[in-house]
Amino acid sequence: MTSATPPTAGNRLDPWFGAYAQRAHNMRASEVRALFAVVNRPEVVSLAGGMPNLAGLPLDAIADTIQRVIATQGLSALQYGSGQGHEALREQILDVMALEGISAHPDDVVVTTGSQQALDLVTRIFIDPGDVIVAEAPSYVGALGVFRSYEADVVHVPMDEHGLIPEALEATFARLAHEGRRVKLLYTIPTFHNPGGVTLSLERRPQILAIARRYGVLLVEDNPYGLLGFGQDPTPAIRSLDEDGVVYLGSFSKTFAPGFRVGWVVAPHAVREKLVLASESAILCPSNASQMAISAYLATSDWQGQIKAFQVMYRERRDAMVSSLAEHLPDASWTVPDGGFYTWVKLPPGLDSKSMLPRAVTGRVAYVPGTAFFADGTGADHMRLSYCYPTPERIREGVRRLASVVNAERELVEIFGTSPLLDDVTDTDNPGPDVA
Amino acid sequence: MTSATPPTAGNRLDPWFGAYAQRAHNMRASEVRALFAVVNRPEVVSLAGGMPNLAGLPLDAIADTIQRVIATQGLSALQYGSGQGHEALREQILDVMALEGISAHPDDVVVTTGSQQALDLVTRIFIDPGDVIVAEAPSYVGALGVFRSYEADVVHVPMDEHGLIPEALEATFARLAHEGRRVKLLYTIPTFHNPGGVTLSLERRPQILAIARRYGVLLVEDNPYGLLGFGQDPTPAIRSLDEDGVVYLGSFSKTFAPGFRVGWVVAPHAVREKLVLASESAILCPSNASQMAISAYLATSDWQGQIKAFQVMYRERRDAMVSSLAEHLPDASWTVPDGGFYTWVKLPPGLDSKSMLPRAVTGRVAYVPGTAFFADGTGADHMRLSYCYPTPERIREGVRRLASVVNAERELVEIFGTSPLLDDVTDTDNPGPDVA
Repeated sequence: MTSATPPTAGNRLDPWFGAYAQRAHNMRASEVRALFAVVNRPEVVSLAGGMPNLAGLPLDAIADTIQRVIATQGLSALQYGSGQGHEALREQILDVMALEGISAHPDDVVVTTGSQQALDLVTRIFIDPGDVIVAEAPSYVGALGVFRSYEADVVHVPMDEHGLIPEALEATFARLAHEGRRVKLLYTIPTFHNPGGVTLSLERRPQILAIARRYGVLLVEDNPYGLLGFGQDPTPAIRSLDEDGVVYLGSFSKTFAPGFRVGWVVAPHAVREKLVLASESAILCPSNASQMAISAYLATSDWQGQIKAFQVMYRERRDAMVSSLAEHLPDASWTVPDGGFYTWVKLPPGLDSKSMLPRAVTGRVAYVPGTAFFADGTGADHMRLSYCYPTPERIREGVRRLASVVNAERELVEIFGTSPLLDDVTDTDNPGPDVA
Repeated sequence: MTSATPPTAGNRLDPWFGAYAQRAHNMRASEVRALFAVVNRPEVVSLAGGMPNLAGLPLDAIADTIQRVIATQGLSALQYGSGQGHEALREQILDVMALEGISAHPDDVVVTTGSQQALDLVTRIFIDPGDVIVAEAPSYVGALGVFRSYEADVVHVPMDEHGLIPEALEATFARLAHEGRRVKLLYTIPTFHNPGGVTLSLERRPQILAIARRYGVLLVEDNPYGLLGFGQDPTPAIRSLDEDGVVYLGSFSKTFAPGFRVGWVVAPHAVREKLVLASESAILCPSNASQMAISAYLATSDWQGQIKAFQVMYRERRDAMVSSLAEHLPDASWTVPDGGFYTWVKLPPGLDSKSMLPRAVTGRVAYVPGTAFFADGTGADHMRLSYCYPTPERIREGVRRLASVVNAERELVEIFGTSPLLDDVTDTDNPGPDVA
């Protein structure tokens, strides 16, 4: 044999360190993760998580429904299924999307392991290293993680209280075109934005779409919260305006339950074919058991009534959050969401949400620093507060604690001119599923 | 605004054709897929599929178990979970692996959406375009699809009746080192090989491992069938010999049921950390509902007795397959597997399994052509026959039909010198989940 140098020069901590792919170096653990282990202690009020509150679900009825599915259709539910997803469920997904004005064909739908997998697949089929994805500033932390893992460059475009700003989008596309950059995707969460808490206005929707079309950029509409609005009818999705230029991502995680990991993507025909191939390569097929459980739930329960109950519950929590902020943090500013899970808070001047986080956790309250939601590490003057999971009372207690932390921090800043500790302690790249 | 040329030159059939990533062009649909749609008709005997036969599962008991999980632990089962997987299940997975001599810590286990996702994640964190993966000739079609989607170059090494040939592996590594090629992974299915039907001998296991170590190549042991042996005790896994140099992939799809999509990967500590990050990026977390259902099944049922029942059932089917082949296709040769789902058949000289497939389907029998299992498109002189799903009677009928097709084909070859039709009709790159 030839005496060969092992090609995988490692080190003491990781013998395979030298063998990783380039993309793996973009998958970074977050130091926030260590803090979030603490967050799960009962004494901490977590305003960080994106977990839906499932307390209102009729567990016994759901359990009986699934029992019947396994007992009567078990040979199918426990077997491999279609790579594209269970056909009956794809038809029911059309009924769900119809509530937001979307009309589609079951063939256009691909069922995925949560809409996170849909994000992964869309990125996988479109993004070469160095390609540009344009996204709102701020944007969903889990999307930024996917984009980074495929070595995309994310360029942010600002929002205001009416969502993504068309003029800013146009200027960004023009600049990138001038620079010869290849923009592949416009990633947007138009309705009840995570983390921004704002909704793209009805007037702007066709404008955004027209700009994307003009620049030949595929629009990816991520819409997990669209049905969780507080009062009004659902806002028509961007996908309701255009079939060929939009890839739409939906999910049962917030309108029913995330534990089944069932989401979906609706895409133009040829794109959908690629997505199925990519999904078969990634997982062979989504879980038949999960899909048939959700299909039976949709067929046998008042799922729209359940969504209405969720709306009422989350609105009450939103109200608790916003009124507590007004009471305890009058120097901050925040968005007042019309639906969804999050408000986006701008701290009083001089404060840094990233360096303040360890002290907040010590003060038994947690949030996600704004830096998690920007590809370029900016955003430390903001934080995301979620009101989806804790009770209104706990939300109010959490904001009270947060106000104490902020006020203590402000004194430090007034004395020292800047927050003296832990200036770069957190890397929020991948805070893990709890805060998605 | 600037008048910009859309960067995504498309065509009439696919306006986004010009926007796909390089890797997407490696995701090809199979023309076999169209045939396999026909295969699912009841009149066709499919010896093509890799679907386990679930008829022996106690569906009512499983249904009741899951009912209890949802009714009593629903708030957890229906919620997001850990990116690494449900802790109780990870501990039970240690019990399963102990049957094959593996000792590990629950921290070393990452639960995945079927072991296919584990394959995807391992490839994702290690493979840059152009990196080499060494694999058996033939190899699992679903692995070749993943490797291709990450733009790996697969180099095959031959097997004999005792599995991968150490001298051939050594010579291949030496040649690749001499050529300056970067070999990242050795992918192997040592036990009840898919599609080869052979098992790596006990003597060869440490030899293969030592060669991989010498060349600094991480060994990926894919072992979905290891517990489905026909009579003897389970063969100790390669992972039982080495912790640091092996990534082990396991699955409940064949020993219990694929419909939950639960598999796992055991990896050295630092690699495991990267896998968790990659999985969180891909799907946030595996399904809690699925994991807790399997955990409850393992805790409350005689799962080892069920595996023994599967062994008896599959052995009977293997016997039907092998005796029918001896009776009806004496000019062919085949492996006689000691476990698992497949036999690998070498056709009589001059026949081409790929071009013969449409005629076989017309003759109401289906198989997977050997070409599906080679990265370089060779293998047309072989086919994979699976005996896992049909009854013994149907298997015998299928082999009878196959013999008719082969004999008719042979007459054509004798008259024309070669099979006259459809010489390149099939592209078996991605035959879909049914044949995995």
